[in-house]
Amino acid sequence: MTVLAPALRDFLDAHIVGVLVTDPRQGHTRPSVVYYVRDGDWLYISTVTTRHKALDVRASGWAALCVMGTERPFPSATFSGAAEIRTSDIGAATAALAQRFMGSEETPEPQTDEALAGVGRVIIAITIERVAAVSFMDG
Amino acid sequence: MTVLAPALRDFLDAHIVGVLVTDPRQGHTRPSVVYYVRDGDWLYISTVTTRHKALDVRASGWAALCVMGTERPFPSATFSGAAEIRTSDIGAATAALAQRFMGSEETPEPQTDEALAGVGRVIIAITIERVAAVSFMDG
Repeated sequence: MTVLAPALRDFLDAHIVGVLVTDPRQGHTRPSVVYYVRDGDWLYISTVTTRHKALDVRASGWAALCVMGTERPFPSATFSGAAEIRTSDIGAATAALAQRFMGSEETPEPQTDEALAGVGRVIIAITIERVAAVSFMDG
Repeated sequence: MTVLAPALRDFLDAHIVGVLVTDPRQGHTRPSVVYYVRDGDWLYISTVTTRHKALDVRASGWAALCVMGTERPFPSATFSGAAEIRTSDIGAATAALAQRFMGSEETPEPQTDEALAGVGRVIIAITIERVAAVSFMDG
């Protein structure tokens, strides 16, 4: 059972960046702007295994992504849920994210998991279990 | 001694909304999109005294605001530091934020602290002590 109503799914698909929030292992939360892609009820984000966001997700198993529109009334929604670090079968998602990052017309050739592991690339995969702060409903 | 270099100050002043992050009293962080105004090294945000963001700031004395551009390469920076809830002398900041919220040409007449207290309005004031994740420097 998805929590992703069609309007929310369309909102997610109309944007490519959001603010990722994780549970800090110590100290304060460090929000960061990230590119994302959606696949069903999953959100994928590419990062490097040594980054705080990857270490936080490994430790807590949770993450949230806040996406907002760029014009008044600045619609926004936060998508959150169980999250994991993936290192297997991540070539396609990583290539899709690389395309968004580069703003290129074509998706680059997916790399193998081994090649991505060689440069420390991992995917943060968030299950959309909860949607909050949907200010575009009353905007 | 400010940590706010001219380029960062200009970046802040070129935008009006950001993603506010607080230390949760329990559970996970709840990022939320907010309007802000800058005054020197302070960021002001209007909220209601019973909201999670106000309760969190009262409890932790800290907050962070992540601001991002709306076009590639999506420049972003997170401004964080000691934060407090203000209920005195908040009329001018609240009026400036109301103007941003409404998108009006003129700043509305400031309300008295008593009138704002009557509707539970408070100001979250963040001292900019740290700036991080300034992706627009390498964008």
